[in-house]
Amino acid sequence: MEHPENDDKYKGLKVNKGVNDMPTVNPYLKKRTPRKRYTADEFVSGILDGNITILSQAVTLVESSLHEHQAIAQEIIEKCLPHAGKSIRVGITGVPGAGKSTSIDAFGMHLINAGHKLAVLAIDPSSERSKGSILGDKTRMESLSREKNAFIRPSPSAGSLGGVARKTRETIVLCEAAGFDTIFVETVGVGQSETAVHSMVDFFLLIQLAGTGDELQGIKRGIMEMADGIIINKADGDNIKKAELAASQFRNALHLFPPSESGWIPKVLTYSGYYGLGIKEIWDMVNDYIAFTKKNGYFNYKRNEQAKYWMYESINDSLRDKFYHNPEVEKMLEPTERQVLNNEISSFVAAKRMIDIFLENIH
Amino acid sequence: MEHPENDDKYKGLKVNKGVNDMPTVNPYLKKRTPRKRYTADEFVSGILDGNITILSQAVTLVESSLHEHQAIAQEIIEKCLPHAGKSIRVGITGVPGAGKSTSIDAFGMHLINAGHKLAVLAIDPSSERSKGSILGDKTRMESLSREKNAFIRPSPSAGSLGGVARKTRETIVLCEAAGFDTIFVETVGVGQSETAVHSMVDFFLLIQLAGTGDELQGIKRGIMEMADGIIINKADGDNIKKAELAASQFRNALHLFPPSESGWIPKVLTYSGYYGLGIKEIWDMVNDYIAFTKKNGYFNYKRNEQAKYWMYESINDSLRDKFYHNPEVEKMLEPTERQVLNNEISSFVAAKRMIDIFLENIH
Repeated sequence: MEHPENDDKYKGLKVNKGVNDMPTVNPYLKKRTPRKRYTADEFVSGILDGNITILSQAVTLVESSLHEHQAIAQEIIEKCLPHAGKSIRVGITGVPGAGKSTSIDAFGMHLINAGHKLAVLAIDPSSERSKGSILGDKTRMESLSREKNAFIRPSPSAGSLGGVARKTRETIVLCEAAGFDTIFVETVGVGQSETAVHSMVDFFLLIQLAGTGDELQGIKRGIMEMADGIIINKADGDNIKKAELAASQFRNALHLFPPSESGWIPKVLTYSGYYGLGIKEIWDMVNDYIAFTKKNGYFNYKRNEQAKYWMYESINDSLRDKFYHNPEVEKMLEPTERQVLNNEISSFVAAKRMIDIFLENIH
Repeated sequence: MEHPENDDKYKGLKVNKGVNDMPTVNPYLKKRTPRKRYTADEFVSGILDGNITILSQAVTLVESSLHEHQAIAQEIIEKCLPHAGKSIRVGITGVPGAGKSTSIDAFGMHLINAGHKLAVLAIDPSSERSKGSILGDKTRMESLSREKNAFIRPSPSAGSLGGVARKTRETIVLCEAAGFDTIFVETVGVGQSETAVHSMVDFFLLIQLAGTGDELQGIKRGIMEMADGIIINKADGDNIKKAELAASQFRNALHLFPPSESGWIPKVLTYSGYYGLGIKEIWDMVNDYIAFTKKNGYFNYKRNEQAKYWMYESINDSLRDKFYHNPEVEKMLEPTERQVLNNEISSFVAAKRMIDIFLENIH
């Protein structure tokens, strides 16, 4: 218990309560021994009871690429759907070095102390750190990882962004059904993942540092305009003035941005994740936003748009997947691309040829 | 000739020179009478000769949705490809009211007077104005429309963005083969079209007005971060100070943006489209950018990426098209979407069901 980074043990202890009829087999410790297979209904009732081990195992099924795992995972998700949707979902992004983990730890403790149940998920398609271990994330968020009302789950293993994002989105459903009322979805701010995160959260938070130079090098263009709130970290000690200056620069910049679809005017705040300063104000802002968008109807509108978005994203993903993994297509794709780059055929003719090849070899 | 907005007559006069062996049949006047059909080779040699009537007719084929027109259009494009690619392509965006037409007229005249040949194209998928008439665009750009070295062509008729954008991109190929060394691609700045434009131009210019309030209402988020140059219009008379202030605000804001992939630092300039002030400086900026990116290799890199982008866009478009126009899919799509919105099935299950329906009914 003194070693929260010893995740397996910790996890076993954390979850084993109130669900005596549900064997709490730890999937990590007993990886190689045959494990009792729950039915979908057993999974669902465990999740609805708030059993974290069962939740974890269900998430593992969601993340699995095995066909049989996917089948049961989809059944579980479907049965959890009516119990999902009631949390506040917050996307949190910032480049490495912005103090994301410390901040999430501080935000999370603020919420836990106010009686909330928090799940911290992540989307990081390029990540290798998550393969088979959640040690990294546990130690990154020291206080949170000790809390029984916090569920920390790293990004699904590397894969296509669409696949990783879908898994995270489905994990949200399971966490909500398990009673988590706040969901953080963390991402690194340097890739395409932000659009995906933006499409599954209610509020999008961008962590920045004072200074306008190197700190921004890593952030991808377009992310600033997605933010509902920009928060400047490390506003403590000698750095307070610099942080305030940065905040006022960002405020001026946001002023020039077109208004957001929600009608909400993005706020810029300073805080210190390390010293826990200004955290309450950040959460007041999130709550203000939720109240504001629930009142003007944008909250539900966006949730519906997101559900549709993910349905059509999944369709498009599957179509692309079927196309690009077709052996005949795979064979012809590169030579055709080369012809386009050499100006021998137009992009459109190239596309048409590839589609014809696909349709001729579809079954 | 005194009435440049009388487009048919004007057009006939404008083009009828130096290509005596090529009948200059006007497609608008003789719409209902059988017209001599050129072969693809005749089209190509007319285009390479710089015959504007032939070019116009070829563009009409590109824009047509008739199968036989598309077949010949693609042959023409393919034969023009080796002669294309040598122009500078500039995307120009700005909300209605920013003075886009007046500005393009002024920029265009600056280039024409410097001996350039300019084609002005547009992407505006929602537009109805272009259906069967180019009158609108001709009168919008009064000086340019009188110039024989300017070719103004409105947006292809309303259709899917992908389709409209592809047609504009293919029109660029034909215009370049016809000897136009500068291409403007205009768009309205309020929709998705900017991403498409951004993917077919070398330089992306955003027209803004002084003031940070209502003028920005229409601009879509994300566009500012795409711009290689922001230019503040109506910097004349009493408005000069306000425009300069706006420029310095934008400069500060851009300073907070992450650096662009090209390494170019976007510039902010003021000008007056109406009085023709500051136009040379804008074109110096564009030329600086071209020189800069040709030197660091980004120019060619981006052109290659764009060619690939359009090939894969076309593939994805076709796949989606085949899917969404499948009668069985069309029948089931709405009820399935409703189930997703009612939380009855997950987005992923919905997608999977639709894909299965598609694959079962593909031929």
